[in-house]
Amino acid sequence: MASQEPVYTTPVSKEAVVTVDKPVALSKYTSRVVLKSILERSDGGRGLDGERVVVGGWVKSSKEVEKQAVALATPPTMPRPQPPQVGDDKSGVAKEVSFVEILQSRIPFLRTIIKVLGCTNNAAHVRQKLESIISKPAPPTPPASIVFLQVSDGSCVASLQVAVDSSIAPPSNVMPTGTCIVAEGVLKQPPVNGKHVIELRVEKILHIGTVEQDKYPLSKKRLPLDMLRDFSHFRPRTTTVASVTRIRSAMSLATHTFLQNNGFMYVQVPIITTTDTEGFSEKFQVTTLLNKAIKKEEFKVINGIDGVSLEMVKASLKEKSNLVDELKRTDSNKEALVAAVQDLKKTNELASQLEARKNFKQLKSIKADSFNFSEDFFCCQTYLTVSGRLHLESYACALGNVYSFGPRFRADKTESAKHAAEMWMVDVEIAFSQLEDAINCADDYFKSLCKCVLDNCLQDLDFVSKRIDKTCIDRLQSMISGSSAKVSYEEAVDALQKVADKKFESKLERGMPLTAEHLSYLADELYKRPVIIYNYPKAVKPFYVRLNTDGKTVAAFDMVVPKVGIVISGSQNEERINMLNTRIEELGLARAQYEWYLDLRRHGTVMHSGFSLGFDLMVLFITGLTDVIDAIPFPRRSGKAYI
Amino acid sequence: MASQEPVYTTPVSKEAVVTVDKPVALSKYTSRVVLKSILERSDGGRGLDGERVVVGGWVKSSKEVEKQAVALATPPTMPRPQPPQVGDDKSGVAKEVSFVEILQSRIPFLRTIIKVLGCTNNAAHVRQKLESIISKPAPPTPPASIVFLQVSDGSCVASLQVAVDSSIAPPSNVMPTGTCIVAEGVLKQPPVNGKHVIELRVEKILHIGTVEQDKYPLSKKRLPLDMLRDFSHFRPRTTTVASVTRIRSAMSLATHTFLQNNGFMYVQVPIITTTDTEGFSEKFQVTTLLNKAIKKEEFKVINGIDGVSLEMVKASLKEKSNLVDELKRTDSNKEALVAAVQDLKKTNELASQLEARKNFKQLKSIKADSFNFSEDFFCCQTYLTVSGRLHLESYACALGNVYSFGPRFRADKTESAKHAAEMWMVDVEIAFSQLEDAINCADDYFKSLCKCVLDNCLQDLDFVSKRIDKTCIDRLQSMISGSSAKVSYEEAVDALQKVADKKFESKLERGMPLTAEHLSYLADELYKRPVIIYNYPKAVKPFYVRLNTDGKTVAAFDMVVPKVGIVISGSQNEERINMLNTRIEELGLARAQYEWYLDLRRHGTVMHSGFSLGFDLMVLFITGLTDVIDAIPFPRRSGKAYI
Repeated sequence: MASQEPVYTTPVSKEAVVTVDKPVALSKYTSRVVLKSILERSDGGRGLDGERVVVGGWVKSSKEVEKQAVALATPPTMPRPQPPQVGDDKSGVAKEVSFVEILQSRIPFLRTIIKVLGCTNNAAHVRQKLESIISKPAPPTPPASIVFLQVSDGSCVASLQVAVDSSIAPPSNVMPTGTCIVAEGVLKQPPVNGKHVIELRVEKILHIGTVEQDKYPLSKKRLPLDMLRDFSHFRPRTTTVASVTRIRSAMSLATHTFLQNNGFMYVQVPIITTTDTEGFSEKFQVTTLLNKAIKKEEFKVINGIDGVSLEMVKASLKEKSNLVDELKRTDSNKEALVAAVQDLKKTNELASQLEARKNFKQLKSIKADSFNFSEDFFCCQTYLTVSGRLHLESYACALGNVYSFGPRFRADKTESAKHAAEMWMVDVEIAFSQLEDAINCADDYFKSLCKCVLDNCLQDLDFVSKRIDKTCIDRLQSMISGSSAKVSYEEAVDALQKVADKKFESKLERGMPLTAEHLSYLADELYKRPVIIYNYPKAVKPFYVRLNTDGKTVAAFDMVVPKVGIVISGSQNEERINMLNTRIEELGLARAQYEWYLDLRRHGTVMHSGFSLGFDLMVLFITGLTDVIDAIPFPRRSGKAYI
Repeated sequence: MASQEPVYTTPVSKEAVVTVDKPVALSKYTSRVVLKSILERSDGGRGLDGERVVVGGWVKSSKEVEKQAVALATPPTMPRPQPPQVGDDKSGVAKEVSFVEILQSRIPFLRTIIKVLGCTNNAAHVRQKLESIISKPAPPTPPASIVFLQVSDGSCVASLQVAVDSSIAPPSNVMPTGTCIVAEGVLKQPPVNGKHVIELRVEKILHIGTVEQDKYPLSKKRLPLDMLRDFSHFRPRTTTVASVTRIRSAMSLATHTFLQNNGFMYVQVPIITTTDTEGFSEKFQVTTLLNKAIKKEEFKVINGIDGVSLEMVKASLKEKSNLVDELKRTDSNKEALVAAVQDLKKTNELASQLEARKNFKQLKSIKADSFNFSEDFFCCQTYLTVSGRLHLESYACALGNVYSFGPRFRADKTESAKHAAEMWMVDVEIAFSQLEDAINCADDYFKSLCKCVLDNCLQDLDFVSKRIDKTCIDRLQSMISGSSAKVSYEEAVDALQKVADKKFESKLERGMPLTAEHLSYLADELYKRPVIIYNYPKAVKPFYVRLNTDGKTVAAFDMVVPKVGIVISGSQNEERINMLNTRIEELGLARAQYEWYLDLRRHGTVMHSGFSLGFDLMVLFITGLTDVIDAIPFPRRSGKAYI
């Protein structure tokens, strides 16, 4: 089949690229060279000097250097002029720098002189004369220049320096941050060693995807993460979010390889369920009943949040901006200025939030007299799953070692930085095992994640350690070499009760759950490493956890890590049907929905244990990010689901 | 930490097992040897003769052989008597077969003789005398026997033969299908070569998980797949579903390794969304508004389906069973008997469905005057995602090559065997690429899945080819060596219009979608291999597919495979904002929800393409299963979500 569409593939055949002395791999399925294969070579790409390549990516930053300046000053990154090549499009060849170009390139400078001189009408004559001198040698074209673009394609942390002569593409077209560019050229070492060991001298631009600069949210440099949260669709273009994404991806693969290498089989547990796993969380309801009712209703366009419209905020933004300018100009009270800047920043944030939500359609209400669930899609009420462990158990009780990796949902409106409504979990279930087996497996899996990121994402960790958390590399290394502390719930409470150097805000009560504050003290202060807490009071764990012989505690465990808290929760689950029945009765649970689960004990029951790892929380632990919203590609939190 | 609970770990230390001549690997995280490591050795386990192991699993079938018979007839699978071992529990050692045992073992036979003799009262004396002769030498204990269990732990297709002396465990406890057993013993070659090259002579039973035989749905052998559908929690214990699960698992890992080896990054796209990707499917709505209303309402226990109760069906079952018996006995009309058996089978199926749903709680209805979506969790209407491609694009437009693998939802009530409400999809998106690149990537990925299953699951495929589809191994091999046919939509329609040997039920109309029947003809009859159809009329594809220069067709493709139909759908997506705007207008879509998507074209747009693979459909293709319900662990279909 032949595509009728214009193509931007390189005219150099794939074979030609592969057979040169120092090959650079052409990316499969795209006709370009992935930047990682240039920039993450052991020589940083130096060995590719002279290779012709096509690259693509997005501009992260840019600067324009006038050609005359290039010729006279020989800056570190100057591209050397190239002779025209046979068969090459003339427009794609760097020109010799002529006297005319040098003069042209000085026009702005001369214009400035004129402006200074021409601030009164008296100077009009001088101005006219000077301008006529300048204009005569050449038509009034913009000065010849070379644009240096830092281009990233998301394959690695580093950017490639791409040099574009203004005769090849107008600087204003390619310079804005976020511009997409596909270019063909030759890799060359910059004449003087600087930050870059290799750069691309562009000979032909194959594609430009422009940017509406005033509307592009990443136009500004180094936006803080919280400013990026309303732009889930753009933030992977920042180096930080790109690094986090690459780390997440490596962790996902490491999950599958670690578990499958250890004989675990992957099972997709259901997302839509009628079974309430824990009874602790609010659940989302899944229905098709509302669809019908909705069709009768009208949509309403919402242009604001809580009655505040974008127009109002924009007006206030202008006022506040004027105030800041005023304060700066009048050199007044410094505190007032700081406060005004702060206020402006907040308003700016709100404005960008509103901008993102602009025209976002929202249904205000629907009317309905009653909902008959026998008419619903599944003829009964269904929910989004909170945990996959119960369903996974039925596969463990047939196949032995199984795991699942998928989204889990909690409709909790808590404003915790460790919570989102939709989070990915890795569930693991092991038949013929007890609590200690699950703990050992969880510990090994945890370490394998740390090791895989250290082994495969060191460049990303380096970047993350500069921008987010200086200690992240050391922390991961200590995880691999060290071991977790293991304490029973009783021992943990004893240790916390002895604490004298800190006053806890939340009350520490034996028999009650430990709060985030208590857990943080154990992992961050007392043990300074991951802590595995086991044998919890039965009241704080779900009905299915196995009752210990003391009749009070259950065979559950949590793995608490510094900075984040609990990343893994596990348990040996009750294999004795009479014990399960008792617990279901004690807790007053709706027994009927667990009939299938009880079946697993009626027929061929076996001791088994397992755990769940909060994948997004593990990303926090590895990267040092503090809010899961920044770790999840498209986060869902109360009131926020619009991208 | 030490567990206070009774353990069933082997008294043999892990080190001891590892250091013997022909080691057998102890499973990590469980104190047992996984059967695969015995049965899938190249020697079938023969080299492990004499090794002491602990194994665990579920009984698939069993037979009891009287010891005397064992001693006299030397059946192929007879375990040789073992001398007592030092330090061993006496009960765990096979006994010498004594004369007394031989006589005891003959008691049932003698009793039969007595019964025959003693059918009249006259024979009472003879009977008494004979009985006294038999009874005297030993007390009336059950005859000593050896039970041969076929035990599977789900790690591989094969079962281990496990020989248990009746003195170690009562046969009735361990023999029922589905019983869970953990046993310690010594691996031995059976004295005569038969089906098994190695068996376990049990010396100690560490755990028995019994079965309530009359209630266990898998008590019967070889239940057809459709009979198993109501028992999602048990069916992985069947060899067929276990094989399918292992194949699924291998395909999942192959997905990640193929894509990551080719530079793709894994991105989790959201499940809860406000964006309607296609506009073609009914969507599930996600809400928390119903939860509140529900709390006020009463639950109602549903014991039947459509007004038919379990009691009614059970009564009818008895009647129908009597009728069959009657017909058999009276040796009447054969057709009537066949019809009655058929009817009985159907009623039986209904009964087991009802049994599974027994006591399943269902909310009948809730009352509510109105729903205010501004009070809903996300302050707006949200849905379960239909496709991840749009969200994935935003990551492709930053990181280049990305993929996602997760559940997608369609609330279509169609009764197609190729559809379920919740299905897993692999979405792939490639920046700097065109239609042909996506096709090449899809084709390579498809082949890599076929190859990985052939390389890693040959035992499972062997089994599947016996039970489900004889041609599956050949089919996969031909996929790897062959290539797909590539035809445009126009060419496909032309080819179908020329068909003379078949009359299509659905009308073939140029410009309209091809139906399953048309697609099947192309892949199964005409090309007899996968067919890639590209350049569809724009009306049959979503708004985001790139318009070709003819202004009529779009750069979409489908990969149609024999037996299943479309397993992959892909496209080059529109990078030109004006074209996208036109399409959105033409189709009358709610533009506001796509603003973020349009942003990707406003700022740094790039040519890109991608595809989605229906993972569950791919399982059908590989295994030869015909209904996705049998390929998905916990299937969701209209009216069915109760496990």
